[in-house]
Amino acid sequence: MGIGIDLGGTAIKGGIVDYQGTIQKERMVKTQSQLGYAQVLNDLVVLIKELHQLTPEETGVGIGIPGILSADGATVVSCPNLNWKNRPLKQDLESCLSLEVLLVNDATAACIAEAAFGSTRDKKNSVILTLGTGVGGGVIINEHVIFGAHGVASEVGHMIMEENFYDCNCGKNGCLETFASATALIRYCQKQLDEGTESVLRTIKNFDARDIFEFAKAGDVLALAAVNRLTRYLGWAIANISDLIDPEVFTIGGGLSGAGEFLLEKIIAETRSRLTYPQYAMPEIVLATFGNEAGMIGAANLSRFI
Amino acid sequence: MGIGIDLGGTAIKGGIVDYQGTIQKERMVKTQSQLGYAQVLNDLVVLIKELHQLTPEETGVGIGIPGILSADGATVVSCPNLNWKNRPLKQDLESCLSLEVLLVNDATAACIAEAAFGSTRDKKNSVILTLGTGVGGGVIINEHVIFGAHGVASEVGHMIMEENFYDCNCGKNGCLETFASATALIRYCQKQLDEGTESVLRTIKNFDARDIFEFAKAGDVLALAAVNRLTRYLGWAIANISDLIDPEVFTIGGGLSGAGEFLLEKIIAETRSRLTYPQYAMPEIVLATFGNEAGMIGAANLSRFI
Repeated sequence: MGIGIDLGGTAIKGGIVDYQGTIQKERMVKTQSQLGYAQVLNDLVVLIKELHQLTPEETGVGIGIPGILSADGATVVSCPNLNWKNRPLKQDLESCLSLEVLLVNDATAACIAEAAFGSTRDKKNSVILTLGTGVGGGVIINEHVIFGAHGVASEVGHMIMEENFYDCNCGKNGCLETFASATALIRYCQKQLDEGTESVLRTIKNFDARDIFEFAKAGDVLALAAVNRLTRYLGWAIANISDLIDPEVFTIGGGLSGAGEFLLEKIIAETRSRLTYPQYAMPEIVLATFGNEAGMIGAANLSRFI
Repeated sequence: MGIGIDLGGTAIKGGIVDYQGTIQKERMVKTQSQLGYAQVLNDLVVLIKELHQLTPEETGVGIGIPGILSADGATVVSCPNLNWKNRPLKQDLESCLSLEVLLVNDATAACIAEAAFGSTRDKKNSVILTLGTGVGGGVIINEHVIFGAHGVASEVGHMIMEENFYDCNCGKNGCLETFASATALIRYCQKQLDEGTESVLRTIKNFDARDIFEFAKAGDVLALAAVNRLTRYLGWAIANISDLIDPEVFTIGGGLSGAGEFLLEKIIAETRSRLTYPQYAMPEIVLATFGNEAGMIGAANLSRFI
């Protein structure tokens, strides 16, 4: 058993996860980041203690964080969603709990969940791309998560592809996530509509990425162009990552992965067309097994992949 | 002691390398690839036997290959310089020798030489970029070389950056090596001259990359633009690689690294401007220690990094 926490911008979710990757018990509280670090810390402590009382075994705690950590994994260096900078979260939690606490980036937690129990199980080398509001990533090489010398590895969403019409939240221009996230899809369609392109999307108020995929499947020209643009950049990024580290498998997670085979087939075709050795080094590209629970499941199993 | 072989398109160089990384004895024969695989194989066997007689110790043999290997490292899948495809070199050599033979990509061999005895010594995570006729690469993570699931990792030179005016030898367009190699420098300058740009280079017949760097240092506008273009793409690629695997150090090898600090300072500035977290995750970027001997030194020490 392990305790896995998914610390998100809107909710703190915690679960007791068994050795088969099943969440046996789950608790959730809203994230009150507007009340400051001490409040969130306290809510975390209460939630972890509650979960710990539910499991009689010796257990560790893993926490998935939507931000970047220090190289030693002890400090949350930057977490824009919670407005945190340089918070010694590991020490602060361990001083309130009688448990070891491990921190990990949330996309990395999802990567671990897939490698332990999901789509990349039994693969020694895997990469996850989580496609949501942004693009997250996780990299496992030789069964170990790659954290990087400064703790900032796996920032796949910020690899620069080419100039884009809007800047990334990170301050750079051309980041993958400005081409390949839900935000990117919506902004691209909105821009085309503003410039006069015809589309069914014009009839929908506040359309989201799900609408865009639905209309793309139905043949709407703009929606399809937006999806094709997204998959072109994803295929390009996957080919570049393959040329560098040549993993066995890429898994596509996050909300957009709900678009299923329609999305996957396009990504595979775009990757193949950009890979240096497609004939003998094409990676598998699959859909992630876990949805919203990936963070908890991965965080609970972090110690296996360090 | 180890025996390291650098199998190049024009010469086969072999050396006995001691535990300090010094080549104690060296032999060289021309590469007669025009006479076919059997001839080169025979020349390798003769050269390795000769070297083995010079060292009384138990030793292994490592061979750096300018091509790609199978995932198990036993077969040369593709080696354009020697016109080889799917050659079972490891087995062919071991059946003629009483020694274990390990094969490795030549840029990876250089990466190992630097990690064992040179510019990236004592660093657990390092990347080499070898800038010559093409761009090669090598990646070491947690003190292990990354070969990849299909044996084609470290193909840094074929990461696609953006559209370029000529295609890469690999058949793709936009590969890093068409922007950041000696060939790229020369072709860019030649194209600008053809289009009427003024430059001292116009007075030099068959100028090479060294000429371009010399005139860039002296302030020639075209030569400087060519060097700045090269360093812009290198900085961009290094930033993208850092966002993915966040190594401690990048080392710049190959013939172009002879341009020294002039080249290095530009690469560092371009990297910093594209990195997602330059304030706390800027990798070291240094010049490689070894020149032409890197392949032999690294190949002789391959077993330490597998």
